[in-house]
Amino acid sequence: MSSKNPFSHLDGLGEAHMVDVSEKPVTRRVAEASCRVQLSAETLVRLSNLPKGDAFAVARLAGIQAAKRTGEWIPLAHPLTLDQVEVDLAPVADGVEVKSRVTVTARTGAEMEAMVACSATALALYDMVKSLERGVVITDLHLDSKSGGRSGDYRRPG
Amino acid sequence: MSSKNPFSHLDGLGEAHMVDVSEKPVTRRVAEASCRVQLSAETLVRLSNLPKGDAFAVARLAGIQAAKRTGEWIPLAHPLTLDQVEVDLAPVADGVEVKSRVTVTARTGAEMEAMVACSATALALYDMVKSLERGVVITDLHLDSKSGGRSGDYRRPG
Amino acid sequence: MSSKNPFSHLDGLGEAHMVDVSEKPVTRRVAEASCRVQLSAETLVRLSNLPKGDAFAVARLAGIQAAKRTGEWIPLAHPLTLDQVEVDLAPVADGVEVKSRVTVTARTGAEMEAMVACSATALALYDMVKSLERGVVITDLHLDSKSGGRSGDYRRPG
Amino acid sequence: MSSKNPFSHLDGLGEAHMVDVSEKPVTRRVAEASCRVQLSAETLVRLSNLPKGDAFAVARLAGIQAAKRTGEWIPLAHPLTLDQVEVDLAPVADGVEVKSRVTVTARTGAEMEAMVACSATALALYDMVKSLERGVVITDLHLDSKSGGRSGDYRRPG
Amino acid sequence: MSSKNPFSHLDGLGEAHMVDVSEKPVTRRVAEASCRVQLSAETLVRLSNLPKGDAFAVARLAGIQAAKRTGEWIPLAHPLTLDQVEVDLAPVADGVEVKSRVTVTARTGAEMEAMVACSATALALYDMVKSLERGVVITDLHLDSKSGGRSGDYRRPG
Amino acid sequence: MSSKNPFSHLDGLGEAHMVDVSEKPVTRRVAEASCRVQLSAETLVRLSNLPKGDAFAVARLAGIQAAKRTGEWIPLAHPLTLDQVEVDLAPVADGVEVKSRVTVTARTGAEMEAMVACSATALALYDMVKSLERGVVITDLHLDSKSGGRSGDYRRPG
Repeated sequence: MSSKNPFSHLDGLGEAHMVDVSEKPVTRRVAEASCRVQLSAETLVRLSNLPKGDAFAVARLAGIQAAKRTGEWIPLAHPLTLDQVEVDLAPVADGVEVKSRVTVTARTGAEMEAMVACSATALALYDMVKSLERGVVITDLHLDSKSGGRSGDYRRPG
Repeated sequence: MSSKNPFSHLDGLGEAHMVDVSEKPVTRRVAEASCRVQLSAETLVRLSNLPKGDAFAVARLAGIQAAKRTGEWIPLAHPLTLDQVEVDLAPVADGVEVKSRVTVTARTGAEMEAMVACSATALALYDMVKSLERGVVITDLHLDSKSGGRSGDYRRPG
Repeated sequence: MSSKNPFSHLDGLGEAHMVDVSEKPVTRRVAEASCRVQLSAETLVRLSNLPKGDAFAVARLAGIQAAKRTGEWIPLAHPLTLDQVEVDLAPVADGVEVKSRVTVTARTGAEMEAMVACSATALALYDMVKSLERGVVITDLHLDSKSGGRSGDYRRPG
Repeated sequence: MSSKNPFSHLDGLGEAHMVDVSEKPVTRRVAEASCRVQLSAETLVRLSNLPKGDAFAVARLAGIQAAKRTGEWIPLAHPLTLDQVEVDLAPVADGVEVKSRVTVTARTGAEMEAMVACSATALALYDMVKSLERGVVITDLHLDSKSGGRSGDYRRPG
Repeated sequence: MSSKNPFSHLDGLGEAHMVDVSEKPVTRRVAEASCRVQLSAETLVRLSNLPKGDAFAVARLAGIQAAKRTGEWIPLAHPLTLDQVEVDLAPVADGVEVKSRVTVTARTGAEMEAMVACSATALALYDMVKSLERGVVITDLHLDSKSGGRSGDYRRPG
Repeated sequence: MSSKNPFSHLDGLGEAHMVDVSEKPVTRRVAEASCRVQLSAETLVRLSNLPKGDAFAVARLAGIQAAKRTGEWIPLAHPLTLDQVEVDLAPVADGVEVKSRVTVTARTGAEMEAMVACSATALALYDMVKSLERGVVITDLHLDSKSGGRSGDYRRPG
């Protein structure tokens, strides 16, 4: 473990600061994240039996809108004018998988935006099913990949 | 599985709507939620070695502030004037546990506010450690309890 | 025309102020508004031929969300914690009719919230069709009715 | 009617998405919109008899401020850092005409910002006269022109 | 100096928390604050020579709007649905005096809202004169009085 | 005193407008501001005796977050995507000195952002000490310097 302070937002004392990105190049950056909303079989069946698919549309929209305002949720995040936010929801064996992909042309990446998009999507879906199943668990929220920017590309192992 | 539509926000067609709470009584309501931010031993040690504890202060503040604005992140949630938001972070074996407790005197409960508080706290903590450990997982976000309101009290089993 | 100043937000000089509502009773108040988005037959057919109905879901959500934050868009409006916002879109001969209904238990009514809901719904619908039909007209936005509150009920004539 | 999907925000299924603008060039773009607030002769006279002109100043400011935050009103709109928002109000025979002009240097145009500016201006003006004339109609909101950007210039016919 | 912790937002360790107000009574509360924007004689003359008074109208509106959203500026402040915000600007010998008065019916007072109103008003006025006089000083921002609530009334000495 | 209108936001009539910055070059710009929160010796001692330093962390964060949203608090300010916001608090003889430094790469400078950062920091600090010392005065808020941009550099005299 090297002695250099590895936290970009925390100085050597532990004080929190915003990073200065003014010397970084403007590049196209993409970040992807995902999480899972664990739902019972009954909830999944009931959702899929509804004639209209507003539940997924509302959840997807919540993710897109929250991502655009990440700088308001996350105190030290830079405000970014995003090029695109994509959110997808897909039923899986034990619930719904949420995936996000955020593109930005900027001096800093959109990792937090991708994480916020998944988080808000999952929370909005929970909001719509909680009257039926209060004990829903949102789990495994993580960054899947990022590309662009000086710190190099990242792809989650496995 | 009864045939009655069990979703409060979705009508029989699946169209999403806001619930009318104007006929519900104003009562004191409390909701508690929690999640876990999985961190490597190295990240935990480095965080705890910092002389000042801003990382946890920033994360706690992010949770409090996001909870107050839940109606903006969650499309069908009612705006609420919260009486209190408490957020606690505690180091555990494999990371940091986040707990929230939200109190409101209103016609509807603060479950979503408690979930949002945990979520934003965890995301802000991730933001501060991601330069050291990009692959952090935020997991097991769920409601622990709620009390007050017509639908009765709830305590998560187990 | 009486000489008394009839504007609640403008004093005798014409200076704009927020009304003091602290002496008004808290009552249940409902306001309804509507407007029309004029669309060509082609746009209407194409919209109705899409397998999923996200366009209307997105527009309805935009209206609900904007209504909750009316106090931010309208400088002298009071912030209100709404009990419900309902928005409906219905195809009509020359486009789409938008109707809103807002319920609040407060010291002041929700007329502005109902107007804002219609306006944001119509604008979001325009956003989704403008690549096909840029010249869409949003027209006839008005208050249909209000009830509750000291100034009495109102129903639009005709 | 060609079979190609003409909606930029709606895919072939009708699912709503944000457009990816990252490959578009950054250019200077201008959009203009207008609408009309129909007022009775009495309201117009009373407004013009006030010694100070705060009513128009407040309405103009509401339009400028809302335009800057269009990405919050309109779910699929990109956040933009506007170069300028101009809003003008002018008394006409049957009320007040509202015109907006928005300039941005970006990968996407400011049509929605121009429409939102007019809409918020008109709504704020309604807010200030509604105690005198509740039945005001906001009408004929449309885009007048846009320039800059790959899809070419547009000028409303007639 | 007693050993009891006197900070309502800071616990004995110095950790910051939101106060729980759910047990406090709902009462009508009023808070007043003021500050001064020091301007040169030239700036004051030029401002007063303008035919229209938008500068003061814009500044007053900035104060009203910011006060309504105090819970977003001030991390540990409760969101409040204000009954009224009054802001007045008056030319004085060395600049402009700003006074605010905020009324709320709630479980906690509006001191922060009154302070925020003055602050935003002064900042918006500075924004409008800074091209002429960059070195403007905003000074003497303080609470003048508060009434209502369990902690008793307060009036600034002198 | 020349007869030319010197106000960038006010036209010759006194009507307030947003400045068109689309023809200005994009350059790196820095602005610095400061203010002072006057505190009694007792409050300063009590603050410094707390084991954890959340009070300053919360205040600093309030300043950073408010600066990012300056375009929402200041009606005619342009929205900017800031490269960095730095806020420092330092105990001085009669209270706490607040300094901010804001960096942006844009068509317009960040003077207002630096002023807003100091203002929100000071207000959040007041919020945390007001239960002990209600009569705190926030004073001497001013711009210290700005650099970058066509109007040249500025450094406050003295």
